[in-house]
Amino acid sequence: MFGGIEAGGTKFICGIGTSPADLETTQFPTSSPDITVGSVIEFFHKSRAKLQSIGIGSFGPLDLDPDSPAYGHITSTPKPGWRNFDLAGTIRNALQLPVAIDTDVNAALLGEARWGAARGLTDAIYMTIGTGIGGGALVRGEVVHGLVHPEMGHLRIPHDRTRDPFPGACPFHGDCLEGLAAGPAIQARWGAVGTTLPPDHPAWALEAQYLAYGLNNLAVTLSPQRILLGGGVMQQSHLFTLIRREFAQLLNGYVQHPQLLDQLDHFIQTPQLGSRAGILGTLVLAERAQ
Amino acid sequence: MFGGIEAGGTKFICGIGTSPADLETTQFPTSSPDITVGSVIEFFHKSRAKLQSIGIGSFGPLDLDPDSPAYGHITSTPKPGWRNFDLAGTIRNALQLPVAIDTDVNAALLGEARWGAARGLTDAIYMTIGTGIGGGALVRGEVVHGLVHPEMGHLRIPHDRTRDPFPGACPFHGDCLEGLAAGPAIQARWGAVGTTLPPDHPAWALEAQYLAYGLNNLAVTLSPQRILLGGGVMQQSHLFTLIRREFAQLLNGYVQHPQLLDQLDHFIQTPQLGSRAGILGTLVLAERAQ
Repeated sequence: MFGGIEAGGTKFICGIGTSPADLETTQFPTSSPDITVGSVIEFFHKSRAKLQSIGIGSFGPLDLDPDSPAYGHITSTPKPGWRNFDLAGTIRNALQLPVAIDTDVNAALLGEARWGAARGLTDAIYMTIGTGIGGGALVRGEVVHGLVHPEMGHLRIPHDRTRDPFPGACPFHGDCLEGLAAGPAIQARWGAVGTTLPPDHPAWALEAQYLAYGLNNLAVTLSPQRILLGGGVMQQSHLFTLIRREFAQLLNGYVQHPQLLDQLDHFIQTPQLGSRAGILGTLVLAERAQ
Repeated sequence: MFGGIEAGGTKFICGIGTSPADLETTQFPTSSPDITVGSVIEFFHKSRAKLQSIGIGSFGPLDLDPDSPAYGHITSTPKPGWRNFDLAGTIRNALQLPVAIDTDVNAALLGEARWGAARGLTDAIYMTIGTGIGGGALVRGEVVHGLVHPEMGHLRIPHDRTRDPFPGACPFHGDCLEGLAAGPAIQARWGAVGTTLPPDHPAWALEAQYLAYGLNNLAVTLSPQRILLGGGVMQQSHLFTLIRREFAQLLNGYVQHPQLLDQLDHFIQTPQLGSRAGILGTLVLAERAQ
């Protein structure tokens, strides 16, 4: 049995199991590290499950460098109380178990690669479009970390201010992809939350355009076999058709491959594990914990 | 001893050796596959060197899928006579040696990773800015292929048409990165080749802006430890200072790491092997040929 923790900005999900077949979860609202991580630790203690290790998929930014003194810490988040919090170390010390940690999006990607829509693939991207935009990449079967970890929400894309005068909502970059296309940008631009806008509202054509620019940039950089789009904004399932059309127009036949030319419905698609991708991915991380 | 072939749009370089210390090269102009590849084969035959294998770094697009019937072919190039040419197979059959093939930029990156400015790094990017723009990425010590291979020149970036009315020169995408920032775009925009424009010409501030957008997008996607910029346009060495400044402004402190905050001179730098990076990288490829 493995333990998993999906650490999110609004809730922490705790899971115990080995796969989608036996996973059991419970969740706690995210407040302060003391209260929330305290509840998580108490949950695992009370569960009396014989756990081999713990996997954590967390909001970030994170320090994932095993040689860093701050390994496993949440670093420069603006979230009150969480800046420089040693998430992995606190869990490890309290539960006396091996712990592996990665970003929330990398965990979701690992879940999808094991049991979901990226199963059997070596190169794939998981992107979540919700209150923010984040992404993880699988290259040759492993998630990309690099110097820190990807921050795909902060891609710079074309922004035609005549068509869309909205200046962008990212406090760091203004009109980066997240600043133009995350949920809060939709709400600020149109004065209404996305879920209240009908499918023929111009918001969606613009949203699809921005996301297609982002996906084009990811595709020409990583050449993935598949791109999965999750998160609250993608619950508007009509967006997929619009995004695929814009994406094909942007590539314009330049990259010749059947998966890009004839099988775009598979190339850009929904995660299969839905909202369980992240917590299932933490079980994959737990397998690797040392 | 290994043989190497750097297959470029204007010339083919052939090399024999094992490292920068003993590499000997010769070159042939690129004309038709018959004539040019014929000269290459004749060169290796006449050399009488006992070669273990051949590495090829080639212009593309290439089919790099070992399971594809077109593995080792140049695919959809507009270059007359080269479309669908079986470069790897032709060399393998003529020389009766194991052959490994990769893109020209991946070869250069492998050369720099072994002997140059990316030595010791696991995650790095090599980008060339010349008559076109191409890039290769190292992730966890291996070059990224994915579904096809990266085509980093075709990133979409912000293009302020008030500041720069030039529509872009890419025949596929207009104002993608290559369309805005490769050598021919500079020449078409300003009516003069870049080498004749003084360092204080406004061409360079604009060029640095576009390249910094591209590097920002690569950095937030791949989180590299270092980015190397080569190619004819980067012979304008004053560009490096401008690009680093723009890049830092774009990231705006969002990614917190000393290499991005204090050591940008190392983070964005020149290849150390200069014009020999590609042919040296083919020796690294040759080592892996089977």
